[in-house]
Amino acid sequence: MHQVYDEMPIGVFDSGVGGLTVMREILKELPEEHILYLGDTARVPYGVRSPETVMKYSLENAKFLMSKGIKLLVVACNTSSAITLGMLREKIDVPVIGVVDPGARAAAAVTEMKRVAVIGTETTIKSGSYERAIKSIDDTIEVTGIACPLFVPLIEEGWLEGDVVNLTAGKYLSAIRSNSVDTLVLGCTHYPMIKNVIESIVHVPLIDSAVETAKEVKNVLELKNIIRKRAGEAARKFFVTDSPEKFILVGERFLDHEISNISKINLGST
Amino acid sequence: MHQVYDEMPIGVFDSGVGGLTVMREILKELPEEHILYLGDTARVPYGVRSPETVMKYSLENAKFLMSKGIKLLVVACNTSSAITLGMLREKIDVPVIGVVDPGARAAAAVTEMKRVAVIGTETTIKSGSYERAIKSIDDTIEVTGIACPLFVPLIEEGWLEGDVVNLTAGKYLSAIRSNSVDTLVLGCTHYPMIKNVIESIVHVPLIDSAVETAKEVKNVLELKNIIRKRAGEAARKFFVTDSPEKFILVGERFLDHEISNISKINLGST
Repeated sequence: MHQVYDEMPIGVFDSGVGGLTVMREILKELPEEHILYLGDTARVPYGVRSPETVMKYSLENAKFLMSKGIKLLVVACNTSSAITLGMLREKIDVPVIGVVDPGARAAAAVTEMKRVAVIGTETTIKSGSYERAIKSIDDTIEVTGIACPLFVPLIEEGWLEGDVVNLTAGKYLSAIRSNSVDTLVLGCTHYPMIKNVIESIVHVPLIDSAVETAKEVKNVLELKNIIRKRAGEAARKFFVTDSPEKFILVGERFLDHEISNISKINLGST
Repeated sequence: MHQVYDEMPIGVFDSGVGGLTVMREILKELPEEHILYLGDTARVPYGVRSPETVMKYSLENAKFLMSKGIKLLVVACNTSSAITLGMLREKIDVPVIGVVDPGARAAAAVTEMKRVAVIGTETTIKSGSYERAIKSIDDTIEVTGIACPLFVPLIEEGWLEGDVVNLTAGKYLSAIRSNSVDTLVLGCTHYPMIKNVIESIVHVPLIDSAVETAKEVKNVLELKNIIRKRAGEAARKFFVTDSPEKFILVGERFLDHEISNISKINLGST
């Protein structure tokens, strides 16, 4: 049985291109693995939607990837991880890894003052999931959440440096610019793209959930003994729910790798 | 028969709250009319999606409003108007009015230098629909289209004035800041919310499609003799595809009026 599982791909989904920063880290940790990536580009962004809607869209994504025979599911979207992980773990018969828990664990390990800030989309921050995850490790840690709704559109527009992104980041992060926290979690898969901007304002260590999540994926594959053992080229396949052109254009910058082998699919009414 | 039609509501749809600026103008022109408004908030924004996807979503919206018995359909979304109007007019058995043609007519009437600029979402600008509509009136008019993808998220965030919106507008509009055009069309229903910012950069008359569209709605109702004649309170009902809270919060600023009588509906997989 194990040989079969070894050869099965890892499934990764996100609302759009953001999760490619997670896939990029998985490729670094596990270059031999087959990977299927699904970006729900016809319904992006999830960060402004209600929990109920994010739940519905995420389950459709997971079911699609399951239908392709994956051995492990990565929810490479903070908004979806924040809300749907419990539900997905009940309904999906393979290990499900989100980006919130690995980021929370890393933050808890790094903070010395026991004061952590988390930045993310409106829905992620409202969910309080990072706070719960961090406090479940050490409930003496104080967690401040800050929603930064304009970061995603700015990054998608490619304005990764310059006045506008600096000013916007300054406004959102002014509350933590002081010495009130010693660790900042990038609670959205887009944010690593403006790491430099954020670092120039908040002079504390940044936790990139993508890196932590990739380590967790490796751990789980090893633990379950389903890491790919055979040689041979690793397959990468991409699925999107809207037309592929823009995904390829923006996505290659996120993945730092060529995107080919991409198909448009329909999920529900997309 | 006419009495029946008189009492039927006008149907208005948009991808989200933006179309409320059109509804606001219709309320001014036609305060006696019943209006149903549908905001497809579970799939907003349309301006970044492919024409094929915008087509599919728009038809679902139109069919929903038709099922409620409307006498006229207003496509209060520039992206959708730019792409789907022909298709909707084929499939829908009531008059269909978009925001592009009224805006184009007004621009053609105002420009003296015969040089017009249009600002809008990526998909609206790429469609070239304003250019075609303006040139079909006077093909000696030169039309420049500029996509301003960050305006919608900025407006939804409520950053209607200040450094960030001023700088962003400055970047997008620098090409037309000079004397190269004498008329600017606001080709997105969100943009009237930052009219002052845009005016402070581009010192030319602005065409607000919402105002022109409301006049067109009145013209068509009069022409078809289906304007509401009976007295009695006018009904307003709102439908959204995601939860209503955020729509109400942001929307009341757009509509300049209280939003009550609102229901969440499902369209396809929303």
